[in-house]
Amino acid sequence: MIDHTHDAAASSWVEGTDDHEDFPVQNLPLGVFSHGHGTRRIGSAIGDYVVDLEGLADAGLLPNALRPALAEPTLNALFALDGATRRALRHALFALLTDPARQGAVAPWLSPTQGVELHLPFAIGDYSDFYVGIHHATNIGKLFRPDNPLLPNYKHVPIGYHGRASSIRVSGAPVIRPKGQIKAPDADQPTYAPCRRLDYELELGIWIAGDHAIAETIPIADAWDRIAGISLLNDWSARDIQAWEYQPLGPFLSKSFLTTISPWVVTAEALAPFRVAQPARPAGDPAPLPHLWDVQDQAQGALSIALSVTLASTAMRESGMAALELSRGTAQEAMYWTAGQIVTHHASNGCDLHTGDLLGTGTLSGPASGSEGSLMEISHGGQQPIHLPTGEQRCFLEDGDELTLHARAMREGYRAIGFGPCRGVVRQAR
Amino acid sequence: MIDHTHDAAASSWVEGTDDHEDFPVQNLPLGVFSHGHGTRRIGSAIGDYVVDLEGLADAGLLPNALRPALAEPTLNALFALDGATRRALRHALFALLTDPARQGAVAPWLSPTQGVELHLPFAIGDYSDFYVGIHHATNIGKLFRPDNPLLPNYKHVPIGYHGRASSIRVSGAPVIRPKGQIKAPDADQPTYAPCRRLDYELELGIWIAGDHAIAETIPIADAWDRIAGISLLNDWSARDIQAWEYQPLGPFLSKSFLTTISPWVVTAEALAPFRVAQPARPAGDPAPLPHLWDVQDQAQGALSIALSVTLASTAMRESGMAALELSRGTAQEAMYWTAGQIVTHHASNGCDLHTGDLLGTGTLSGPASGSEGSLMEISHGGQQPIHLPTGEQRCFLEDGDELTLHARAMREGYRAIGFGPCRGVVRQAR
Repeated sequence: MIDHTHDAAASSWVEGTDDHEDFPVQNLPLGVFSHGHGTRRIGSAIGDYVVDLEGLADAGLLPNALRPALAEPTLNALFALDGATRRALRHALFALLTDPARQGAVAPWLSPTQGVELHLPFAIGDYSDFYVGIHHATNIGKLFRPDNPLLPNYKHVPIGYHGRASSIRVSGAPVIRPKGQIKAPDADQPTYAPCRRLDYELELGIWIAGDHAIAETIPIADAWDRIAGISLLNDWSARDIQAWEYQPLGPFLSKSFLTTISPWVVTAEALAPFRVAQPARPAGDPAPLPHLWDVQDQAQGALSIALSVTLASTAMRESGMAALELSRGTAQEAMYWTAGQIVTHHASNGCDLHTGDLLGTGTLSGPASGSEGSLMEISHGGQQPIHLPTGEQRCFLEDGDELTLHARAMREGYRAIGFGPCRGVVRQAR
Repeated sequence: MIDHTHDAAASSWVEGTDDHEDFPVQNLPLGVFSHGHGTRRIGSAIGDYVVDLEGLADAGLLPNALRPALAEPTLNALFALDGATRRALRHALFALLTDPARQGAVAPWLSPTQGVELHLPFAIGDYSDFYVGIHHATNIGKLFRPDNPLLPNYKHVPIGYHGRASSIRVSGAPVIRPKGQIKAPDADQPTYAPCRRLDYELELGIWIAGDHAIAETIPIADAWDRIAGISLLNDWSARDIQAWEYQPLGPFLSKSFLTTISPWVVTAEALAPFRVAQPARPAGDPAPLPHLWDVQDQAQGALSIALSVTLASTAMRESGMAALELSRGTAQEAMYWTAGQIVTHHASNGCDLHTGDLLGTGTLSGPASGSEGSLMEISHGGQQPIHLPTGEQRCFLEDGDELTLHARAMREGYRAIGFGPCRGVVRQAR
């Protein structure tokens, strides 16, 4: 089957779609929505609309084999199906939305996105968070070890750790400032108080498709077959809680109060044209161990995804000012390890991965100033404040700040596809 | 209601129960079983039998309000009910099993435990692992920092981290030796190879009952209301993988290949008489912060639970030798923080806990030699081997070794109740 779903010239009959920044017909991300408090249904985003896939399936407009999975309130059953079945969904949906003759049958299943509620796309089994943004790891390491920022294992091991699944929410969830144990450097004792160094982390979240048994591994050549798609992920971080708690077992409550994701899963199929060559490792860096090395993965393992972060304080929003761009970079430049290497490493000890597991990349900072993915980096550990157009200053987030992550997969010859915003407004501690 | 369910003199009509080491009628732990590959059903252990609670409910022998929850394949719905309803289950079951007049009605719902398969008692949402065994933390710390083994935060923060939920299995699951990145101290490069320093960790696992919303906390006075019960937990650990991977974000693949629990949940109600005074903190230790401090929690926060670990190599088993006891201690002496403090700390940042979440205590080593909860401690980091009765030596686990954790709640005036074994046999790497 020739794949026309990436043709830059393809056009949808849905109004305002062809020049939509995030959701032209080449994207067709999957998610879960409801009308108010109604039942959760599987949908796709097309322009400023959500198309109800359960409805399309019930109407006989999608392959019949997909109908049970599309009637579920999460994407788990759909992504437990084999890849060919899922690709059939993409092709069928693309055909329906590009053929004007199908408008009459399909249009009743469109709803303006503004009028629906978006939910977690998966029932998330386990959430792990990695640390593959080498410039982030370097920037953070420099704050503690200026001469030797990267630890000896960094270029051998895709460093990661377990995260908290229960507190993952979709874009728009309030960011209640967490409380926790904080110890000022000059204090004798810690106090239990609201976080004063609240930060964000710009990450991508990799969704797992399919299950494998415990004690089995995932060869690097098969790793992308286990990736359902990608969302934006904000790993909100309480830096003062983190500094006091993290030794010796790593960050815990400094992260687990909330993680925000963008609600649409940009599928592996949609991302196919945007998988590009992984940048060569700098001379002198060790080669990955054989189980993490694959020619094809190196040729198509990087993601040509533009990333940016914007901030709007309460005063800025009240004055009608545009949000301030805090940073701009690309996933390709930021990631020292590929998504495939992340997946293969995670299962390399026999740990079983399952549909709906979420793997954060870690903070994706670029190599240059202006591309840092956290305030901890931008403000140099709280030493160099950002100046907002209102005259306000920020080293860390203040109550009322609206922080938004943005991502668009871009490549010459292809229509860019976006992820939709991953947004949160900080609220005062309870 | 006067609680007779702990009366030491109470006797069950089920044969061999009154002097059963683990499951006299004072225990009545809850779990999930099946007949072969049949459907999963909720049961309780009584002596060497499993009593089918779904069957008893269907027969009208248990409170009607419990019937939907007892028809589930996990304990989640049951422990989402309020405490009074759950206590009614214990009292009703106790009455049925102690009244000889009910034998005719109840006996058809008993099956020998040997003939059933036991399963995970809960659908586990999130698994967190703590580090509250202060003697373990000290023993491990001494291997790296002989003069200053405990980090500055240890006596202020119940240190914990997120664990992997997907790879938790019940007692008896094979322990496939994991592979991973290992770097010998004198090697230039790591290799991907089978773990050579495979260890166990003796822990208790605290099961959460009930749900709370994100951004809310759990006052220390309410923490025990959120504890469903306790199982044994073996946090299998690949020490060589751990040593190479754990900086800076903590242990990851060195732990996530398998965690084994004992299948029976010894309920908070069954443990009530065994909650004793938390040992006073040594003079000079800081007082816990107010949100972690409660008079009642200190008076009843420690667990009078005897713990031990046994090892039997293949050669020992083939020779008919008894397993060798590696250590013996108590939870009360080992835990610097109470179960209540663990729960309250975990939610103190607003992280939402849910029914079926599992919280490991961390390794429970006692203060004296002979009570260490891991081989890393017993062998002093692999320097001092254990001598087995066959003449074999062990610094870490070898293929074929059978390792079993044991626990019994004991207190004068009460009949001891046990947890049942938490066992695994090490198998060679794939």
